[in-house]
Amino acid sequence: MKNQINYQDKSEGRNWFRLVYQWRGSVMKAILPRVLVCAIFSLGVTVFYQCGVNLALPLESGIVPSIVLGLLLVFRTNTAYERFWEGRKLWGTLINTVRNLARTIWVTVEENEAQDRQEKIVTLRLLVAFSVATKLHLRGYTNYDELIDLMPNLWHEKLKSMNNPPLEIAFWIGDYLQEQYEKGCINPYQLTAMFKLLDIMVDVLGGCERILKTPIPLAYSIHLKQLVFIYCFTLPFQVVDELRWLTSPLVSLISFTVFGIEEIGEEIEDPFGYDANDLPLDKICQTMKINIEDLISLDPCVRYWKTSVDELMN
Amino acid sequence: MKNQINYQDKSEGRNWFRLVYQWRGSVMKAILPRVLVCAIFSLGVTVFYQCGVNLALPLESGIVPSIVLGLLLVFRTNTAYERFWEGRKLWGTLINTVRNLARTIWVTVEENEAQDRQEKIVTLRLLVAFSVATKLHLRGYTNYDELIDLMPNLWHEKLKSMNNPPLEIAFWIGDYLQEQYEKGCINPYQLTAMFKLLDIMVDVLGGCERILKTPIPLAYSIHLKQLVFIYCFTLPFQVVDELRWLTSPLVSLISFTVFGIEEIGEEIEDPFGYDANDLPLDKICQTMKINIEDLISLDPCVRYWKTSVDELMN
Amino acid sequence: MKNQINYQDKSEGRNWFRLVYQWRGSVMKAILPRVLVCAIFSLGVTVFYQCGVNLALPLESGIVPSIVLGLLLVFRTNTAYERFWEGRKLWGTLINTVRNLARTIWVTVEENEAQDRQEKIVTLRLLVAFSVATKLHLRGYTNYDELIDLMPNLWHEKLKSMNNPPLEIAFWIGDYLQEQYEKGCINPYQLTAMFKLLDIMVDVLGGCERILKTPIPLAYSIHLKQLVFIYCFTLPFQVVDELRWLTSPLVSLISFTVFGIEEIGEEIEDPFGYDANDLPLDKICQTMKINIEDLISLDPCVRYWKTSVDELMN
Amino acid sequence: MKNQINYQDKSEGRNWFRLVYQWRGSVMKAILPRVLVCAIFSLGVTVFYQCGVNLALPLESGIVPSIVLGLLLVFRTNTAYERFWEGRKLWGTLINTVRNLARTIWVTVEENEAQDRQEKIVTLRLLVAFSVATKLHLRGYTNYDELIDLMPNLWHEKLKSMNNPPLEIAFWIGDYLQEQYEKGCINPYQLTAMFKLLDIMVDVLGGCERILKTPIPLAYSIHLKQLVFIYCFTLPFQVVDELRWLTSPLVSLISFTVFGIEEIGEEIEDPFGYDANDLPLDKICQTMKINIEDLISLDPCVRYWKTSVDELMN
Amino acid sequence: MKNQINYQDKSEGRNWFRLVYQWRGSVMKAILPRVLVCAIFSLGVTVFYQCGVNLALPLESGIVPSIVLGLLLVFRTNTAYERFWEGRKLWGTLINTVRNLARTIWVTVEENEAQDRQEKIVTLRLLVAFSVATKLHLRGYTNYDELIDLMPNLWHEKLKSMNNPPLEIAFWIGDYLQEQYEKGCINPYQLTAMFKLLDIMVDVLGGCERILKTPIPLAYSIHLKQLVFIYCFTLPFQVVDELRWLTSPLVSLISFTVFGIEEIGEEIEDPFGYDANDLPLDKICQTMKINIEDLISLDPCVRYWKTSVDELMN
Repeated sequence: MKNQINYQDKSEGRNWFRLVYQWRGSVMKAILPRVLVCAIFSLGVTVFYQCGVNLALPLESGIVPSIVLGLLLVFRTNTAYERFWEGRKLWGTLINTVRNLARTIWVTVEENEAQDRQEKIVTLRLLVAFSVATKLHLRGYTNYDELIDLMPNLWHEKLKSMNNPPLEIAFWIGDYLQEQYEKGCINPYQLTAMFKLLDIMVDVLGGCERILKTPIPLAYSIHLKQLVFIYCFTLPFQVVDELRWLTSPLVSLISFTVFGIEEIGEEIEDPFGYDANDLPLDKICQTMKINIEDLISLDPCVRYWKTSVDELMN
Repeated sequence: MKNQINYQDKSEGRNWFRLVYQWRGSVMKAILPRVLVCAIFSLGVTVFYQCGVNLALPLESGIVPSIVLGLLLVFRTNTAYERFWEGRKLWGTLINTVRNLARTIWVTVEENEAQDRQEKIVTLRLLVAFSVATKLHLRGYTNYDELIDLMPNLWHEKLKSMNNPPLEIAFWIGDYLQEQYEKGCINPYQLTAMFKLLDIMVDVLGGCERILKTPIPLAYSIHLKQLVFIYCFTLPFQVVDELRWLTSPLVSLISFTVFGIEEIGEEIEDPFGYDANDLPLDKICQTMKINIEDLISLDPCVRYWKTSVDELMN
Repeated sequence: MKNQINYQDKSEGRNWFRLVYQWRGSVMKAILPRVLVCAIFSLGVTVFYQCGVNLALPLESGIVPSIVLGLLLVFRTNTAYERFWEGRKLWGTLINTVRNLARTIWVTVEENEAQDRQEKIVTLRLLVAFSVATKLHLRGYTNYDELIDLMPNLWHEKLKSMNNPPLEIAFWIGDYLQEQYEKGCINPYQLTAMFKLLDIMVDVLGGCERILKTPIPLAYSIHLKQLVFIYCFTLPFQVVDELRWLTSPLVSLISFTVFGIEEIGEEIEDPFGYDANDLPLDKICQTMKINIEDLISLDPCVRYWKTSVDELMN
Repeated sequence: MKNQINYQDKSEGRNWFRLVYQWRGSVMKAILPRVLVCAIFSLGVTVFYQCGVNLALPLESGIVPSIVLGLLLVFRTNTAYERFWEGRKLWGTLINTVRNLARTIWVTVEENEAQDRQEKIVTLRLLVAFSVATKLHLRGYTNYDELIDLMPNLWHEKLKSMNNPPLEIAFWIGDYLQEQYEKGCINPYQLTAMFKLLDIMVDVLGGCERILKTPIPLAYSIHLKQLVFIYCFTLPFQVVDELRWLTSPLVSLISFTVFGIEEIGEEIEDPFGYDANDLPLDKICQTMKINIEDLISLDPCVRYWKTSVDELMN
Repeated sequence: MKNQINYQDKSEGRNWFRLVYQWRGSVMKAILPRVLVCAIFSLGVTVFYQCGVNLALPLESGIVPSIVLGLLLVFRTNTAYERFWEGRKLWGTLINTVRNLARTIWVTVEENEAQDRQEKIVTLRLLVAFSVATKLHLRGYTNYDELIDLMPNLWHEKLKSMNNPPLEIAFWIGDYLQEQYEKGCINPYQLTAMFKLLDIMVDVLGGCERILKTPIPLAYSIHLKQLVFIYCFTLPFQVVDELRWLTSPLVSLISFTVFGIEEIGEEIEDPFGYDANDLPLDKICQTMKINIEDLISLDPCVRYWKTSVDELMN
């Protein structure tokens, strides 16, 4: 089965207007309650105003707070997106490293007995297991059933008692490589190079944990929320004089804008969950598995190359 | 044939005004329908207004949403450009690595028989094949005819059954290097260094896939489209009171500005296609091929160097 | 004991409104005095104005200073956050490197006598000691009691007379590795690779010292403070004509916005302290310790791998 | 001759006001025609207006397009500067690598015959030749006379038939190193390290080509030019009502601002030319040459060190 | 003597208001003349206006130039700060590398004769000499007296005739390492690793030279100065109608804001001088020296480790 690249065909149109009303993946569901609160509050302000209570508040000199709020919202957006993109980059590095390490093991480790090939295959699948375990670890799972097909039973049992299962899998891969070196099946330079690739895999694990466990500093999110709150609840007083009964729809629209951008930041910030806006970790792990199985289907160890070039020569 | 560097001569003028009206490469074609919708809508609003329906809507306090929209549009622009530029950087890395790996193979692999030279040349062309296969893979092709001249037939057949052809080509290159090491034609340190270069090539492949498969989070593009939509369709109500029949032209102009910048973001975001705004992947692959053929035209293995210095000495 | 990942469950709601009023982690406490000064000053201006002293000051053309102040505040914010995030990244690198170095030592150093295992364990704990010493060094402590359990007594004494204790611990780790190499328990390539990991640990130490000792250039913080000061104390004159008795509450609100964002910058800038907004260094060191103890609970040296695969074979 | 560092003395004043009127290095020359067109156009508008044709156009609600234009201009500026600075960084890397590779060759390659020293010197000069050839290649030259003194004649002839001369020079350097290794004058680890430095030099070449051949995507520059055009030619209609005969001077001033910033972006974008705003490539190559000649003036190979320490000991 | 970390105690208050009036480190001194010129000019404008000359100039449509100026000022600020911070990072890298190289030399180089230890110490001090020479070189000194205590006399003499003294020091360090390798005191892998650290030190030198010799492109600083100039000298005409005698104080205040931010950019841009806003290079070199002397006070070569663990065992 070919792994699909969902290449967007630019020429056929992208249904611009349909996206505007799309519900799934949008933050509308999350911010609706807050927008409604604002709408009702504005309505109340309007009613009082129409009853003759003077609530109008001119706020023309507030340009600096407006700029600050605007820029802070975008700072929030940028920061959250950078975390999302860094998470994606780390998983991209993981794919690359798994591919490179698998190819190197497949090509360089010498096979002397029939069992050696089998051990290689076990190790290649351990690489996929590392990725899956990282995914489960990041999502806070303690159930590791997804790993059953990717490693021997004895190890799967062992994993359950560990605090950080991917680290143990990395230990087993390192152990295998060291054994091959001691048996004389790989030379020390290649061993060192493969250890470095293994180090990169553990770096990815640490990088993802860092993104997961360190949200944006509390002071920022509190101050931003306070500014948004102040802005949305002083807004009706500023516009009621001019807009009268249109106050409530307008304030809803504006609060929708502002709450929406703040909410997106919060949703994107931790990209390892299941939302429509999160990284497709399941699909990424699946791709790795396909790549590894493809590799296993090729004969390593030089015979293949020789015949091909002989054919070319003749 | 010299490969041309299209060096822009600054002193002769750049036809500033001609670029303003250029059609190809511009996004005018893509956004024209949307701009027309806005123009017609504004015209309708004006007609109703002139017929005495009061549609005027004062919206002076909307500075925060304006800043948010403005900054979000530029955030979109920045993000898309960064993806474009990262894609370009990855391909630049690919060129560099192909050049370096080709030179290292050409210089360091010992030749003992006549066939050895031939095998070297096959491998050097495989490096180009890797790049071409990456290009085709990124563009979603399943037809790999472009590779026929760059590898033996047997392998070309084999490629068709693979999910990710560049990975198999990388496997063959690794296989060749490992064989040379086992035959004693390269020492283990150089083998390790060349494997690292091969790893970089696979990293580039993974990096490009990452850019291709991970668009900007859905929540952003939806929210941005919604804001643009709201802005463009509330605009006529705000200006009709003042501009009367000029409303429609003006709203068209402004919506042209806003839709244009949003559209560019979308177009630049995936830089591996065929548009005027995409990366010139065909040209890049061509450059690599020329560099490799140039290299093949030089005699490796020390003889050349010796005669030259002897000449210098005398 | 499982180390908890505080994964925020998105679906259950985040108590948006509660965060708005949260006191701990907010900067309200720090900026309250300044906001009060502004409030009282505005009140004074209002009183004078109401008494007939004409203090109104139209300042409509000040858009450039407003933009400059707004952008400078956000520049401050960005810079401070980047330092915070760089600090976090450095500690993430430290975790990764400790894990990698520990695994490499555990897997590769040959054990010939019973004491060798014991020495390994001492060295693994020294890795944790390096992190803890770095933490204490960054916080300006001269009391190193926290290290007592992590190293032999003799060394703990020695540390007290040193200017930069983590550097000495790095020296001891290097000394251990060099000894193992000279005894023939690790090969020279692995020695070099491990020395590089040790170098990274010292790089992290230097990076954290850099963040700690180099605040944002004085000229910026002074100029920013001056602009904020000028802005907040000219504000009442601009709005008193229009707002009358509402001047003081409004100026308080705006100064709260502006002082808050400036204060956050200052608080986040040095992320190695104990505040709610600082990095959780104690927790990070604790995680490292757990990971190391987990590793020690696994048998190294190949036996484990063999039995498992045998089981798989049968 | 000492190579001068033009260290700006801060205390003596920088002639702030003189710079304002400086012509060379400024973009005034390039944008003057466009500014004049705007001035004349505005004058025409004013004349018609004074003749009673109502051309006034209120455009108060255009804050989003204004923000978009402003931010897009600065996006242009940032992008162009980043390219300039990346180009500078690449050349900085080239200087560093040439210095490092030269020092390593000078120190580590064993000299057995008199000719060996001579060959070393030829190779050191080839390093400078690589830089000079890169400079010429980036500037689109096909005349390589500047290289005559830096390499043997035979090679200089050979270069003329090549598409990418720096690549051939890199090949010769690699060839020399490989020969030394085969003669036993350098050990394989140092060979690998030096090959890596050579790879970095080729990376710099590729990086510069990337900057040169990939301008900012066409869609951006067209859209930006269109926005600038629309802005500058609708401006007179907006201000003529208020400013009357002052319209033309004012529009000139504003169009000067806007065209200037757009033009700088275009000028900085390709930093490898001869303009006052381009990188001083000639000077950089000269510095490299001086550093290499300095190095050649020092005796390598341990004798120097020994005598010095002996002197110190006694 | 303990090297002090000036850890700011957050809880005790930071004297917010005192910083506002601080003179040293502020740019007030540098911009005072320009601000005075603006003040006097505005006063003149006011006098003429009061005498009945109509100088009022409405400039309400200038929002794009205002945004451009505002953003350009912040672009200036960002760029300058990035250069400052990159300079700091380079020196941080230098500290780290000196520490790492020193530790590696101290631990790994075998000592056979009494003189060997002495040579090691000379080399360790040469590392500090490299940093000090870099500092002097960046500051444009040609007097190298500060190096006298850090190297043998003979070499100190030799340095005076060199164009780039740090490069020669790097050559000597490389020479020492190569000699140790040839004497068999270090193995080739460690030699290569140490050469790489030496390369990093030379990279730092090149990086600092790059920052020093490449100011922001002239076109930017000229255009920015022109915009600031135009802004400050058209400002009085815009506000004189409204503010009358308050024009001059207000224009002074605004020009103070704008000149200040531009001046900071210029001052921070070259961070290797002596100003209050420059990097504390003297202090950094001092720290390095202390760290090296601390290291020398520890016994290398395995004996220390052994006794400690024996003590632990019993």
